[in-house]
Amino acid sequence: MTLQATKFGRDYLQNRILGEFPLARHIGIVVESADDSAVVLRAPLAANANYKGTAFGGSLYSLAVLTGWAWVTRYLAARGVAADAVIQESSTRFLAPVHGELHASAAAPSDAQIDKFRKMLHRAGRGRIRVRVEIHYEQTLATLFEGVFAAVMRP
Amino acid sequence: MTLQATKFGRDYLQNRILGEFPLARHIGIVVESADDSAVVLRAPLAANANYKGTAFGGSLYSLAVLTGWAWVTRYLAARGVAADAVIQESSTRFLAPVHGELHASAAAPSDAQIDKFRKMLHRAGRGRIRVRVEIHYEQTLATLFEGVFAAVMRP
Repeated sequence: MTLQATKFGRDYLQNRILGEFPLARHIGIVVESADDSAVVLRAPLAANANYKGTAFGGSLYSLAVLTGWAWVTRYLAARGVAADAVIQESSTRFLAPVHGELHASAAAPSDAQIDKFRKMLHRAGRGRIRVRVEIHYEQTLATLFEGVFAAVMRP
Repeated sequence: MTLQATKFGRDYLQNRILGEFPLARHIGIVVESADDSAVVLRAPLAANANYKGTAFGGSLYSLAVLTGWAWVTRYLAARGVAADAVIQESSTRFLAPVHGELHASAAAPSDAQIDKFRKMLHRAGRGRIRVRVEIHYEQTLATLFEGVFAAVMRP
């Protein structure tokens, strides 16, 4: 891992998420790991439970969208690209209930997708990239989130 | 409006949402109105803002999914159907930023969709229904959420 990748790792993302999204503190978002291959976030069940004692869909979504946002934000920061990312559209499938800690991971998109994103940002000052986030409970894929994030260069 | 529709109106949904979803209190969910034609929920911006001073996608989603859930839950309760609803899948488009109070409305699905849902519940003990929720900021459609909710009869 390069020095720059380390600099924009777990602590960097944890500070940005808690500083920039007040609700993340109530959800109890913890950045577990962040490097070139993946970003992993978690949150405790208690604050995010519903009446059935399983994770609330709004909490699962919030965790997933922040995990995707964290992947894009880290990608931009580690390469010195002065751009901000926002969610543009998403599809989410709730496949199985989550009875314990919420645990979300975003893997890096393909090299071809990343390359297209980087070129769009460079040429047009804005780009879009699709990020897939999985939430597992024990060995089961519980929530599948696919989101398109738009990044825009800062003026 | 029938007496039963009044009984399962705003106060009923407000109590259920705050009692059953701890995060709803932090989001500041308020049920504004609930009757046969529509359910309307709102939340203040401050608790739900992101670093840009606009509403966080996770908050918009949470408000939208609770608005859809509230429509289904009210439909079931007002007809004495002992079933619980959960979100199964959703697609969400963030079309414009929300710079103020978050304001979400779910209109009743078509009579044909409701009829199919009711018959599935009656025959199979479970049914699915698609609910569309819109979040407007001033006159602009800011977020469009479409969710499929599954309802299952209680044992």
